[in-house]
Amino acid sequence: MSKGRLEAFSDGVLAIIITIMVLELPNPEGTTFSALKPLVPKIIAYILSFIYVGIYWNNHHHMFQAIHKVNGNILWANLFLLFCLSLIPFTTAWMGETHIQSHPVILYGINLVLCAIAFTIVEKLAIALEGKNSDLGRAVGGHKKEYLSVIFYVAGISISFLQPIVGVICYTVVALIWLVPDKRIERNLKG
Amino acid sequence: MSKGRLEAFSDGVLAIIITIMVLELPNPEGTTFSALKPLVPKIIAYILSFIYVGIYWNNHHHMFQAIHKVNGNILWANLFLLFCLSLIPFTTAWMGETHIQSHPVILYGINLVLCAIAFTIVEKLAIALEGKNSDLGRAVGGHKKEYLSVIFYVAGISISFLQPIVGVICYTVVALIWLVPDKRIERNLKG
Amino acid sequence: MSKGRLEAFSDGVLAIIITIMVLELPNPEGTTFSALKPLVPKIIAYILSFIYVGIYWNNHHHMFQAIHKVNGNILWANLFLLFCLSLIPFTTAWMGETHIQSHPVILYGINLVLCAIAFTIVEKLAIALEGKNSDLGRAVGGHKKEYLSVIFYVAGISISFLQPIVGVICYTVVALIWLVPDKRIERNLKG
Amino acid sequence: MSKGRLEAFSDGVLAIIITIMVLELPNPEGTTFSALKPLVPKIIAYILSFIYVGIYWNNHHHMFQAIHKVNGNILWANLFLLFCLSLIPFTTAWMGETHIQSHPVILYGINLVLCAIAFTIVEKLAIALEGKNSDLGRAVGGHKKEYLSVIFYVAGISISFLQPIVGVICYTVVALIWLVPDKRIERNLKG
Repeated sequence: MSKGRLEAFSDGVLAIIITIMVLELPNPEGTTFSALKPLVPKIIAYILSFIYVGIYWNNHHHMFQAIHKVNGNILWANLFLLFCLSLIPFTTAWMGETHIQSHPVILYGINLVLCAIAFTIVEKLAIALEGKNSDLGRAVGGHKKEYLSVIFYVAGISISFLQPIVGVICYTVVALIWLVPDKRIERNLKG
Repeated sequence: MSKGRLEAFSDGVLAIIITIMVLELPNPEGTTFSALKPLVPKIIAYILSFIYVGIYWNNHHHMFQAIHKVNGNILWANLFLLFCLSLIPFTTAWMGETHIQSHPVILYGINLVLCAIAFTIVEKLAIALEGKNSDLGRAVGGHKKEYLSVIFYVAGISISFLQPIVGVICYTVVALIWLVPDKRIERNLKG
Repeated sequence: MSKGRLEAFSDGVLAIIITIMVLELPNPEGTTFSALKPLVPKIIAYILSFIYVGIYWNNHHHMFQAIHKVNGNILWANLFLLFCLSLIPFTTAWMGETHIQSHPVILYGINLVLCAIAFTIVEKLAIALEGKNSDLGRAVGGHKKEYLSVIFYVAGISISFLQPIVGVICYTVVALIWLVPDKRIERNLKG
Repeated sequence: MSKGRLEAFSDGVLAIIITIMVLELPNPEGTTFSALKPLVPKIIAYILSFIYVGIYWNNHHHMFQAIHKVNGNILWANLFLLFCLSLIPFTTAWMGETHIQSHPVILYGINLVLCAIAFTIVEKLAIALEGKNSDLGRAVGGHKKEYLSVIFYVAGISISFLQPIVGVICYTVVALIWLVPDKRIERNLKG
């Protein structure tokens, strides 16, 4: 089974998710810059989510460059990943709408964790299909970024019960960790 | 006529359908998890529809891998399929909005039946064009899944007059039947 | 300049236009089938517009199969065509919302005429670039469908001042004329 | 790293941005043409933004035809460009909603400047990767259009504090400057 349409479909869904979030930004009520002030939490939430979806597109791109074939399980795991990502506009909107309060920030963190789990499942299934000595198998070696992410996600979700702003900072740190594309795969494809 | 743009256009429409449904989820009214409670029927409806559109994308993908050429009839039958699928966000929203009541669940079931009929028409036209001994013709042999689906669709729609929840369960059973991609085509392409 | 991205971008825009119209369908206010009754004019408008956008995608597909190169003028004419088509969800919504009244039906007709003019411009520019003896040049010979369309568009827009329903019927006739894909190009590519 | 998926993803995002702006056009309140009158500023804003996104798609298309490889930096600069462009529906809606008042027009201008900066960053990174003697490096020589744009952007934003309509005219002039696709790259690819 070819990976072409899976990539095209994923690109389509990711492009829509990343773009429709801007529809959640309501029209400022007023004609001066001060009317933008109540939108600041929503814009921050939008920027953070845009970066996250961008990271997932980026890593998805990298992962599938090292994948040569797909099977039914990978198709469904990928759809589960797209489902988790499709909830981001919803959890982002709630977080922005409530001006970054405790429960919405926790739900947003859980959403991010679900996306991370789904991505890991796709990766594991792809390695199982391609073999440990494949491009992908050799590329995904150490898991420093993954372990760091888990720590910051857990910390962010826990702290959000008391200080949701600190939770958002934790999620931002995870985003910064991943902003650099996965050099491991790139290096391996070259070497 | 090449099938490339038909696949690309279908992927685009399916990607949009599967993603815009999340726009139907309204912002929770409140800042605590309890505000999510009234959304539960809508989220269930969203998940079911996401799975259905995922199944159609999956089977569409499989079917067109076994198709080598398309004609005007197939183009239009495919557009009719996309039309039926495009109604799913509408019927899903009504079902969720009314907290899974009788008539909305019946309409949702009718929508699913229409999609199934449209998909069958595309398949029949493709077999007529490719020939009974083509990849596709040999792949689509028994119709166990199709017959089972008809039974559960009819049962689900009928029961929904009295017990709409049971109707939703029937539709869910059909989804589970199809969650496994069509092994027949995959097997045939390999053999 | 390659036509690949122009086709991909057009497919994307057309896929979005054809799908977002369903977002204009409001949630039925009520839990029984009778709640669907006030939506009937909107659903009719949606179906007609879906068919029109489908026809444009279909003919766009056919035309670009016979086109081998594009230049800046064709890119911009194509964007103008996409702009005209992007107004269809807006004029469709007004026509449906007002339950098919005089002025909205006229505006809808003008929108359809604009799309037809834009399509013709793309076609003319492509023939100018490819040459009269190209696949496209030879394919587009008689203009029976075009002349018939002009007559029915003018008739539909005129009659809509008095009887908007008859206007909608005229537009439907044009759609039926075009439902059959352009056999001329198909025949020519084969011969 | 191949540029294929970057182009496909960018096409998807640009197609969605250019199309969802039409969703911002509200239903006319009334059944006669006079109901369209209050929408005129919104429609003007929509047309201007449609042209701008069209220009960006066009120039993106041209630039990436001269680019043969991409790296992580270009991916992220491109995502930043898409982010800036994704804000256009938001700033357009505010400008239209307020009937082209001072602050919204300034914000719109700032948005356009951000897009121009982001595009320039992608271009610079691509030239750095491809080399000064690459197709792209030789193509991007003089910067007449860029300098003219800066002047008109600065003029437009400044004047908008007093006369926002003149600001919109300045932005329109920039659009007209760019409506012609970048002949330099086209010429160079041929020569």
